[in-house]
Amino acid sequence: MKPIHGGVCAPQGFQAGGIRCGIKGGSLKRDLALIYSQAPCTSAALFTANRVKAASVLVSQQHLAQGPIRGIIANSGNANACTGEAGIAAARRMAELAGKALGIPGEQVAVASTGVIGVPLPIEAIAEAMEALRHSLRSDVQGHEAALEAIMTTDTRKKAGALEIAIAGFPVRLGGMVKGSGMIHPNMGTMLCFITTDAFISQELLDLALRRSVQRSFNRVTVDGDTSTNDTILIMANGEGHNPRIQTQGPDFAVFAAALEELCISLARAMARDGEGATKLLTVTLRGAPDEASAAVLAKSVASSNLVKAACFGADANWGRVLCALGYAGIAFDPHQVEIAFASAAGRLELCKGGTGLPFSEDKAKQILLEDAIEIIITLGHGPGEAVVWGCDLTYNYIKINGDYRS
Amino acid sequence: MKPIHGGVCAPQGFQAGGIRCGIKGGSLKRDLALIYSQAPCTSAALFTANRVKAASVLVSQQHLAQGPIRGIIANSGNANACTGEAGIAAARRMAELAGKALGIPGEQVAVASTGVIGVPLPIEAIAEAMEALRHSLRSDVQGHEAALEAIMTTDTRKKAGALEIAIAGFPVRLGGMVKGSGMIHPNMGTMLCFITTDAFISQELLDLALRRSVQRSFNRVTVDGDTSTNDTILIMANGEGHNPRIQTQGPDFAVFAAALEELCISLARAMARDGEGATKLLTVTLRGAPDEASAAVLAKSVASSNLVKAACFGADANWGRVLCALGYAGIAFDPHQVEIAFASAAGRLELCKGGTGLPFSEDKAKQILLEDAIEIIITLGHGPGEAVVWGCDLTYNYIKINGDYRS
Repeated sequence: MKPIHGGVCAPQGFQAGGIRCGIKGGSLKRDLALIYSQAPCTSAALFTANRVKAASVLVSQQHLAQGPIRGIIANSGNANACTGEAGIAAARRMAELAGKALGIPGEQVAVASTGVIGVPLPIEAIAEAMEALRHSLRSDVQGHEAALEAIMTTDTRKKAGALEIAIAGFPVRLGGMVKGSGMIHPNMGTMLCFITTDAFISQELLDLALRRSVQRSFNRVTVDGDTSTNDTILIMANGEGHNPRIQTQGPDFAVFAAALEELCISLARAMARDGEGATKLLTVTLRGAPDEASAAVLAKSVASSNLVKAACFGADANWGRVLCALGYAGIAFDPHQVEIAFASAAGRLELCKGGTGLPFSEDKAKQILLEDAIEIIITLGHGPGEAVVWGCDLTYNYIKINGDYRS
Repeated sequence: MKPIHGGVCAPQGFQAGGIRCGIKGGSLKRDLALIYSQAPCTSAALFTANRVKAASVLVSQQHLAQGPIRGIIANSGNANACTGEAGIAAARRMAELAGKALGIPGEQVAVASTGVIGVPLPIEAIAEAMEALRHSLRSDVQGHEAALEAIMTTDTRKKAGALEIAIAGFPVRLGGMVKGSGMIHPNMGTMLCFITTDAFISQELLDLALRRSVQRSFNRVTVDGDTSTNDTILIMANGEGHNPRIQTQGPDFAVFAAALEELCISLARAMARDGEGATKLLTVTLRGAPDEASAAVLAKSVASSNLVKAACFGADANWGRVLCALGYAGIAFDPHQVEIAFASAAGRLELCKGGTGLPFSEDKAKQILLEDAIEIIITLGHGPGEAVVWGCDLTYNYIKINGDYRS
């Protein structure tokens, strides 16, 4: 598994591009992205668990249900959510416009949107920009970068990656980009994630690999506990790597699935680190739960706690808040067996054993917690269940960003 | 139902007091409180739902299980939570010391603590202060005020109240105090609430009235989503009002229960308004849910959303975040029937109907949201279920307070 450059354009046969069409008003930033596979694909997708789903999500779900997609059109600056029938019509038109520009049926295009909720999507601006968008398509890293810029909102960093693996001796590539920074919680945040691969793989196994990967990556990230209306993760596999088709759950599938999970985890971690206002990446590792699912629930409860997050911001080794957050997670455990340690590049410190505090050096704790990546390690002693969850600290800037997001 | 003065000393036959014994270190604030009924009582209590329970909670639960209590000793500055066997022994000793000072068995005393988690309780300081604590007892409002001061931590306001009602022609009084400001979420926060009444009422009905009242008051408050290890609400009823004993669920019980609910709601609202760092009281009223329980879940989801709370701080009429928070509450509803309005002393504005936005004046919205008490009114159209939940905005000061609480 080798990191490579190029993002979603790293796999063979994919193009990407992005332009500014004016959805973000006076901003000069790009706001419209296109990703395209020159060859037919298999594809898979997961969408938000929120009962209120954006028009783009509803339309993409319909298109995916009709068959594989091979193009993605995405905009930032407007979520096209809570926009009624007009919103649905706009999302459908957006796919049709992209399909026409690419010379494929509109049903083979997925739509994704991110931005403010409840404002009509300026579909005419998108229609007028379609020709320029098509011309922006490139098969190199610049195409990838332009598309990525065009889906960013409050993101402060570009979050992308690509890997190369070998399947039966054939080099195969996976590339991905993600946007997401606020409204991020289990079951995916306001995140859009687009992944391309030139692996040759059946629809069913692509879907299985995606579901498993998301379970251990994007579903283990929390920024602020809000699950968005627009979450979308899409993968397109076009087979241009010419490996023998992956159609059973054998060793080839295992290699592909592991690479996809690795890519998703790296994107998910990057998203947590770039959480709105965040200054620190918070990794909560929980061991000794009855099973993996309950380990994930307990770790998420800690990573989601505003009090734990504020303590991390303040570099305060407040392990009592960690124990408290475990206690209200809704999973049974024996508080008297809990061990808690804090760690970072500056070292590791045991803070709690047998459910009670250990004497520790406040200076050492401060050193550890002043690093920009902190790990909280929890051991319960109830079984083999283990999970890692990523989050971030809660800061003044989170309030600043979200106290006046619309204007 | 008539508001009166005196707090927990308003009912006949109760005394309260508070002193500084040094638990808060260098602080000159009071940190040790005592409340006492001169006559025997019936009593009832509810404690935190957190699986990690403070030693004081465990000991109080034992004492309540053995019979009614008639004294409460409480400290601030130390939660006596996650303190192991030594913590249990300290909590038990605290009750014994208070019992000895009051001339009653230690089992008739409940213990409550609030403050930092995981630090041993300085029980010797409490022992040395016991004589002074007993001498601080008074049956007037000064006694009440001293006790209330002694249970406050990050609270910025004194939160208390008292009511007089008539039961079968006899004047009967209820008085209460509450502390709580952070770690506040459904199922009660780091809140301590002590209520006294001179009503003559059976143990069973006192318990029933308390449970019902808490359901519609303290369990409907959220500040930061963290459920504390120490939540305690205690009521003592000493019968000194000499009303005919309330022992059936007839009209007298209804009058008493309504007054208790009224008192609890006013204390709960005061707690939300004084949420850590809060500048605004947020009231979420949800109508048209299938039933009251689901109405409460939906309203809590809105009042708990960091994004909604930050928008309220920023006076941003971001109704899309309200709809989004309804969507991830885990209750089925039709997004296309949702209506949302924002209101305050400055007026009312309809923002969303049929699940989509209405045109509205941003100036008017700003006016409404700049008030220090904001209401979000949501209508679903699914049935008769209705609930009100109280919360507060999320501010820079919340981060400041919780980024460095221990020091």
